[in-house]
Amino acid sequence: MRMTASFLLMAALASQSGPLGPTVSTWVDSHQKEIVTELLETLAIPNVAADRANIRRNADHLGALLGRHGFTAELLETSGNPLVFGSMNVPGATRTILFYCHYDGQPVDPKAWKQPDPFTPVLRRGQMEQQPDTIDPRTAARFEHDWRIYARSASDDKSPIIALVSAIDALKASSLAPAANVRVILDGEEEAGSPSLVPAISKYRDRFHADLMVILDGPVHSSGRPTVVFGARGIATVTLTVFGPKSGVHSGNYGNWVPNPAARLAALLASMKDDDGRVRVAGFYDGIPRPSPEERAMLDAVPDDSARMLQAFGVASPERGFPKLQDALQFPTLNIRGLSSAHVGAGARTIIPDRAIAAIDIRLVKETRAEDLVAKLRAHIARQGYRLVDSDPDEHTRAAFPKIARLAIVDPYINAFRTSVSNAQARALVEAVTQASGRPPVQLRTLGGTVPIAPFIDALGFPAVIVPLVNFDNNQHEENENVRLGTFFDGIVTVAAVLMM
Amino acid sequence: MRMTASFLLMAALASQSGPLGPTVSTWVDSHQKEIVTELLETLAIPNVAADRANIRRNADHLGALLGRHGFTAELLETSGNPLVFGSMNVPGATRTILFYCHYDGQPVDPKAWKQPDPFTPVLRRGQMEQQPDTIDPRTAARFEHDWRIYARSASDDKSPIIALVSAIDALKASSLAPAANVRVILDGEEEAGSPSLVPAISKYRDRFHADLMVILDGPVHSSGRPTVVFGARGIATVTLTVFGPKSGVHSGNYGNWVPNPAARLAALLASMKDDDGRVRVAGFYDGIPRPSPEERAMLDAVPDDSARMLQAFGVASPERGFPKLQDALQFPTLNIRGLSSAHVGAGARTIIPDRAIAAIDIRLVKETRAEDLVAKLRAHIARQGYRLVDSDPDEHTRAAFPKIARLAIVDPYINAFRTSVSNAQARALVEAVTQASGRPPVQLRTLGGTVPIAPFIDALGFPAVIVPLVNFDNNQHEENENVRLGTFFDGIVTVAAVLMM
Repeated sequence: MRMTASFLLMAALASQSGPLGPTVSTWVDSHQKEIVTELLETLAIPNVAADRANIRRNADHLGALLGRHGFTAELLETSGNPLVFGSMNVPGATRTILFYCHYDGQPVDPKAWKQPDPFTPVLRRGQMEQQPDTIDPRTAARFEHDWRIYARSASDDKSPIIALVSAIDALKASSLAPAANVRVILDGEEEAGSPSLVPAISKYRDRFHADLMVILDGPVHSSGRPTVVFGARGIATVTLTVFGPKSGVHSGNYGNWVPNPAARLAALLASMKDDDGRVRVAGFYDGIPRPSPEERAMLDAVPDDSARMLQAFGVASPERGFPKLQDALQFPTLNIRGLSSAHVGAGARTIIPDRAIAAIDIRLVKETRAEDLVAKLRAHIARQGYRLVDSDPDEHTRAAFPKIARLAIVDPYINAFRTSVSNAQARALVEAVTQASGRPPVQLRTLGGTVPIAPFIDALGFPAVIVPLVNFDNNQHEENENVRLGTFFDGIVTVAAVLMM
Repeated sequence: MRMTASFLLMAALASQSGPLGPTVSTWVDSHQKEIVTELLETLAIPNVAADRANIRRNADHLGALLGRHGFTAELLETSGNPLVFGSMNVPGATRTILFYCHYDGQPVDPKAWKQPDPFTPVLRRGQMEQQPDTIDPRTAARFEHDWRIYARSASDDKSPIIALVSAIDALKASSLAPAANVRVILDGEEEAGSPSLVPAISKYRDRFHADLMVILDGPVHSSGRPTVVFGARGIATVTLTVFGPKSGVHSGNYGNWVPNPAARLAALLASMKDDDGRVRVAGFYDGIPRPSPEERAMLDAVPDDSARMLQAFGVASPERGFPKLQDALQFPTLNIRGLSSAHVGAGARTIIPDRAIAAIDIRLVKETRAEDLVAKLRAHIARQGYRLVDSDPDEHTRAAFPKIARLAIVDPYINAFRTSVSNAQARALVEAVTQASGRPPVQLRTLGGTVPIAPFIDALGFPAVIVPLVNFDNNQHEENENVRLGTFFDGIVTVAAVLMM
């Protein structure tokens, strides 16, 4: 119902303001030079989160940038790196949108890059793998859509900041103001887990109030189409240790007699999952409803490139319990990310090892909170006959309990966030993007991965969606990170549509 | 029946030749100085198998030693280190005994020793852990039974060589000749796997003929009583790899969908064993008979110090399938000696790993040959739905088979050896030792571990038993290896008994 209502509303708006997509596109086309120059200037400031001096230069630069583009800008100091905050009120607006981007980037290993300095951007006439020419951007009059800028944070996450201020300019040039009040938070610690975001709420709560948070981060769907994401899975990381003899014992002298902790760990892990990849820990999937017809339609509408992905990974078929990727992402996981016991290969010795260790990550969905799933896992281990300990067992514990294990929490939990696919704000955003680009965006009910902003969303309490703006093949977090200019220019249209929702 | 017959025979022999045990003991007691001096001289020559120059010095020294004690001695050249061979024929003897010892030792890390040089023996008035005084052996007139000599190969395996020649001297001094022809092989490569023994057979077959091989190596039972061992388990080492995606993939983006090789390895390993430690691979225990009443009696007669061992290992209880150690050793094992997949601990990343590896050792008994058990394991893996490959799978294999694993052989197989507990030669030996020491020796149907001499025994085709002569707490293979003099002196009596069998 809401979809229909929103659709009519947006259609009405679109007719009032003219065809927004082409209007913004035309403006971007004739302002390529200024837009790209502003991006290049921003990329030239090194932005590793731990580099405090350069982080401050970024913050000052971006505060000034927001100011130049019509925002009231300020730096919000935290115990870590400052948040760059921008505010723009629109007379008569009844809605406030809070945009979130981040200005820090992943650490760099310059030797691994195919350019002298990840902070001296390089413009290439295409994707590096095709060995295109490089171009001096100062001499370029036009920027083709397949050209790419190579630099740290080209995609993750400085392009979206430039896309946002460019969209504001594009609307202004068309004599349009945003339809909503606009707030912007630029985080300086996202790649370090955003530790200062939640603590900042108590200090700056009034500034952060909004009706919808729009996270401009991450890549669009591999089809290149505009993409809207309603959530992201959370994560809990744990280490499971099964204890054997105090130190390794001779596998000949005692084999068959002294229990082997690696065999026991294998049996314990095997008890947690069936052969189809479904978790058998009691209650693990509790509370997860079947998708509604609307959600089912959304999941089924995501373009399916699973054949290509499986080929790229060298995997014949996915888990039988979750044959479709989008369905697989709607459930929590129990993933063994590492195993260790004594040695394999050249260092292997004929022993019964003293312990066996599994590193596990549990991806969470909205309905499954970290504390609960970890408690259920703990109960499962106990039901397999294990005494759970909090540290290496002492003599007394060893003498009393035949099976001893430890489940240790590794990193702080990050719960999932997910905005209802029928949330009115989110639906309005989807319709605005649909209108601007002429067809519905790819809509993902949830990302499979985890975003550190989730606790911030949780704490603020209003809905959030992710609107990614850059190409999927951007080498995010790796060397030779890049942004494809056509995808970036299209992103400006997408942000303009969001501003007009 | 044979036991009874042998017993009567030995009792008759013992009455002919007088009480052998006290006679030899008395002789040893009055010749301590010469015996210990000969041992110290032998220990002073470094004997790491790879140290060719010193190995040659050992061989020359030991050839001369055998000659001094009445043997016809020669060095049998091989493609590796020489075998020192001794021969002593006894007029009228109808039996030939081939003694086997080795003169090479484990590598040494002098810094780890509590003495300047592992090849400069140190005499201590007790076990090092009790911090006894050291004594200059040149000044000692008597050597107490609790004193110990610390040096590489003090126990493993130079003491037995000196015990053998001392036993010959003791018999001579009592006007007794050995009852059998005597052959001696001193191996210079045991700690390197005895690669030259089997090849030497074709060259020196006539010298190696005997009715019984007596291996003088290893420690007596922890009770300190004379010990006779009828066999040793063999070993096959394999590496099992389960393949996942070509390289690790993001556990968020693809978790639940891309199969996890660590989870699959765990399930595969779990399918191989039940919760009681019994192997579930079809046919793994085929052909292993229940122990005969005679064998049952022998197994039950082994002193049980399992409570002390479990406490030392910090293990509450043994595998439920094999509650008694001596029973556990009568069956082949399937032991996971190592596990590895991606990383645990600080290096852990949130990925679905590319592969998971288990290092496995299979201990073999006489009835289970390596080739057969490895083939059964391979069939078991195939029955779990795996395509078995011989190297990392190519694109085609990856695309065609959902489950791919590799089972690679690591070291050359060593099969088990075991002489029947009712073998007439072995029974005669046991009775001789019983007569000499006044009570039956501890009799082990098999060692749990593996001896590299097993293929040599196999190839020669006549029965073999192990007669260990040194203390169980000798730090064999470790730093601060030692021999307790009382156990060593008792060993001379045991060898004399064997010579008179």
